[in-house]
Amino acid sequence: MEEVQLQERYADPVPEALCIAPAAKVGDVSDAIDTPSLVLDLDAFEDNLRTMQVLAERHGVALRPHAKAHRCPEIALRQVALGAVGICCQKVTEAVPFVQAGLRDIHISNEIVGEPKLRLLAQLARKAHITVCADHAVALRALSAAMAGHGASVGVMVDVDVGQKRCGVQTPGEAVELAKLARALPGISFAGIQAYHGGLQHKRSLDQRQKACDKAARLVRRYVDALEQAGIACPVVTGGGTGTAVFDVASQLYTEIQSGTYAFMDTDYGGIDWGEALAFRHSLFLLGTVMSTPAADRAIMDFGLKSTSAESGAPRPVGWPGLRCVAVHDEHSILQADDAKNMPALGDKIRLIPGHCDPTFNLHDSVVALRGDRVEAIWAISARGLSR
Amino acid sequence: MEEVQLQERYADPVPEALCIAPAAKVGDVSDAIDTPSLVLDLDAFEDNLRTMQVLAERHGVALRPHAKAHRCPEIALRQVALGAVGICCQKVTEAVPFVQAGLRDIHISNEIVGEPKLRLLAQLARKAHITVCADHAVALRALSAAMAGHGASVGVMVDVDVGQKRCGVQTPGEAVELAKLARALPGISFAGIQAYHGGLQHKRSLDQRQKACDKAARLVRRYVDALEQAGIACPVVTGGGTGTAVFDVASQLYTEIQSGTYAFMDTDYGGIDWGEALAFRHSLFLLGTVMSTPAADRAIMDFGLKSTSAESGAPRPVGWPGLRCVAVHDEHSILQADDAKNMPALGDKIRLIPGHCDPTFNLHDSVVALRGDRVEAIWAISARGLSR
Repeated sequence: MEEVQLQERYADPVPEALCIAPAAKVGDVSDAIDTPSLVLDLDAFEDNLRTMQVLAERHGVALRPHAKAHRCPEIALRQVALGAVGICCQKVTEAVPFVQAGLRDIHISNEIVGEPKLRLLAQLARKAHITVCADHAVALRALSAAMAGHGASVGVMVDVDVGQKRCGVQTPGEAVELAKLARALPGISFAGIQAYHGGLQHKRSLDQRQKACDKAARLVRRYVDALEQAGIACPVVTGGGTGTAVFDVASQLYTEIQSGTYAFMDTDYGGIDWGEALAFRHSLFLLGTVMSTPAADRAIMDFGLKSTSAESGAPRPVGWPGLRCVAVHDEHSILQADDAKNMPALGDKIRLIPGHCDPTFNLHDSVVALRGDRVEAIWAISARGLSR
Repeated sequence: MEEVQLQERYADPVPEALCIAPAAKVGDVSDAIDTPSLVLDLDAFEDNLRTMQVLAERHGVALRPHAKAHRCPEIALRQVALGAVGICCQKVTEAVPFVQAGLRDIHISNEIVGEPKLRLLAQLARKAHITVCADHAVALRALSAAMAGHGASVGVMVDVDVGQKRCGVQTPGEAVELAKLARALPGISFAGIQAYHGGLQHKRSLDQRQKACDKAARLVRRYVDALEQAGIACPVVTGGGTGTAVFDVASQLYTEIQSGTYAFMDTDYGGIDWGEALAFRHSLFLLGTVMSTPAADRAIMDFGLKSTSAESGAPRPVGWPGLRCVAVHDEHSILQADDAKNMPALGDKIRLIPGHCDPTFNLHDSVVALRGDRVEAIWAISARGLSR
């Protein structure tokens, strides 16, 4: 196909810079924020950080928050400032902006396969203390060769499957073999095991979660025992999430927990039973504007799947009783009012709790941090899109 | 919360630039592309562009492809080079990189509400021919005031609801009133009507789509007639999508069609019945790597919801009979093999057809354009994330 010669075909008729203004500036009231925007209630966010930090410290367990939830270095720095030992990332590229921001202790809670990823990992490992997961001897040998070849070293957490049926070795015997291999090969060292079970996090009842955690813990115990019997100390057992943190810290097995969503919450985690165990507040909201009111009980919002994930359910409007989000399209969402008397007007701004915070953060380049109703800061979501 | 003084807390131990290499370089074979990456088969893509262009021209209807599907100026330039009259965008910010790339005829197929958006719209309208939608007199007056105030002018397409129950006026009388207002107010002019029905696009059988299109067309006819009876010429009727294009071009009502997905396809559109009417090829794929093989019939891929949308269904592996994507998590996807003999190995790269192309493009900063098995170009998805 012919290459289009733009300069010849179109001259810019107005030599004026065309630039997109930020959604808000510091000091603005929230109603002045352009939409759709992701906003963070700092008071609720800081409460959440403290609540989880206190929980972990009370049990002598390290908190290593998962930065995949937010991909925002400013947030990670605040977690570490309150006592977190470091962070988790899920991808090698994702870790880059965090290392650039000064984070120096990062667990990449995932298997790393492929030469470009290993090359970047070696670069990161020359600047920061890095651990990664492994569940296969072939991958572990490639990891060792790459680290040794690039003059770097990383710690290896053997990933063990405690029931999620995702990654991870399936038997304690395999874990022992991988740990031995990690101890024998150059450029890597055995750092512990990762035992994460995402499926448990969202079980609705507290009792169900407790029972499922007990079952997973018995599996973790088998892995730790097998390593001990093989004469291999297991300094770290890492895992746990927001939904199971209260059980994981009390398990006397996990030495660190990887919760991420606790700082923000979403309708997914908001919908599970928390008992009186922990109380996290909704701190993260999508701010949208009513762009059309075609019927007395229907408002069309200016956001869709490109601003909020919907695979875990639609976002939930806050402060509008009887108003429900009934559809999320590519670029619009539809709010339906039970009672036309409680309908927002054209141009009204509405806050909604996202269905699932991790993929929602990943749709935005920045988050507007609010103190009360004022913009205190705008933080870059620097690792947005870094999924390699 | 205390401000973290990074410079004091952490000195960079290795003063070496940390940078993320592109996923591929021109000339690479596809197997060398780092993953997850979005890849475009140029031969199939160009076939699709020609197929739709020929269809539109055969019926004397203009093709104005929807750039919300791809958000990539390089793609829009190729559509216009083949004969498209311009493009559609869905958001004001989204239009910016397209205008910067030289596109000079853009229909923003959406209602625009809010001062920051109107300010940017006026900037765009000084550089390009811009039309926008309106379905409310209050919004139309604000649009007029902003355009006139900033010395700009835009065309207005009155948005009419032809059954989708989203935006749009509900009666021909309302459309006539808005058209009159658009003709009377400064800074704006009446440009036509938009009659888009997203819900029809995905009806599975060709016959169902035909019947639904006929019904919608009868509604469109009522709007055009009402305008004519009021002495208002309606120069443009814009609407239509990939699923209904074959009927819309033959309707003798639509003067331009807004299809977007036709250039790429996805499992959503791939799953509807096309009869012998049109044949679009799958040109868009997600490339992923097998990062774990924990069971004989299960492979874990290195992509999840941050690389592919899943609300319209999981992506579908290509070239691996009996291999199905059974789960898409935040950062992983799980492939299940019907037969363990047809399982990929650790490190294998697999192409998958995304479930829904629009939100999938919006997750990536670039798309790797392949000619056969070689990388011909890497195109920036410059409007990725521009949803205000």
